[in-house]
Amino acid sequence: MTNPHTEHLRHFEELAIGETIDLGHSTVSKDMILTFAREFDPLPFHLDEAAAKTSLLGGLASSGWQTGALSLRMLVDSFLSKIASAGGLGFTNLKWKNPVMVGDTIGGKVTIAELRRSETHPQWGIVTLDFDIRNQKGAPVMSMRLANLVETRP
Amino acid sequence: MTNPHTEHLRHFEELAIGETIDLGHSTVSKDMILTFAREFDPLPFHLDEAAAKTSLLGGLASSGWQTGALSLRMLVDSFLSKIASAGGLGFTNLKWKNPVMVGDTIGGKVTIAELRRSETHPQWGIVTLDFDIRNQKGAPVMSMRLANLVETRP
Repeated sequence: MTNPHTEHLRHFEELAIGETIDLGHSTVSKDMILTFAREFDPLPFHLDEAAAKTSLLGGLASSGWQTGALSLRMLVDSFLSKIASAGGLGFTNLKWKNPVMVGDTIGGKVTIAELRRSETHPQWGIVTLDFDIRNQKGAPVMSMRLANLVETRP
Repeated sequence: MTNPHTEHLRHFEELAIGETIDLGHSTVSKDMILTFAREFDPLPFHLDEAAAKTSLLGGLASSGWQTGALSLRMLVDSFLSKIASAGGLGFTNLKWKNPVMVGDTIGGKVTIAELRRSETHPQWGIVTLDFDIRNQKGAPVMSMRLANLVETRP
């Protein structure tokens, strides 16, 4: 049966392994770092510039979880809002490779790594996405692999 | 050399495999779900009750990334703020097992699964933490394994 809410969106059958999605960019301000850290990751190296300078990060840096959330937002805008997504299943192999400092601009690309139909639920497929997030200098800041449910065509 | 900023905190040597950390609890309101989703995960099933009802989630549910961020906050309060943490390295095997709906209370425990000294940097060790996040009915909502750097004693 056709779903009027998602009919106009790309479905599982219209995705291809190797397709790459340009995530665009997001610039991380001091205020964004402090607001997120106060709510979710209130450790000194995300909140206090003096403490951050003496830390491994070398200065005020975003929570790694914030880098992930900003990457998710870029994926929603560039891809997830355009497919018949039924939700995320999970992540694996998330690695924070370099800190994201105040004023850094992050962006990157996502590649469709795997496409698999659900064996038990023919109305869904699973798309596996590899993230390669970099800063404005081209240095890697985060990689991860996301598994997401997508509707198949009726 | 002793670090006056972290001297009073638990170091790598004072952690033990099998130690469990009680995360306490966090109740997820509709306002929290909408605020997070607008910024990081603006998909219909996190923003619009009518769309959420017809989705796989069955109602307004938090972004999985928000469930992770709230779990991180509980870990900061119960553990990371009490150890000489130098930052997260990454995580693996994150699985969202059940949606977190408006009004749900999540909590759970974290277990120290592995302790490993850095081969190249004697000032650090790596603590690996297994998360078991559940809702107020005891149903699992998220599991993951986090790797975090911790200072060793000088």
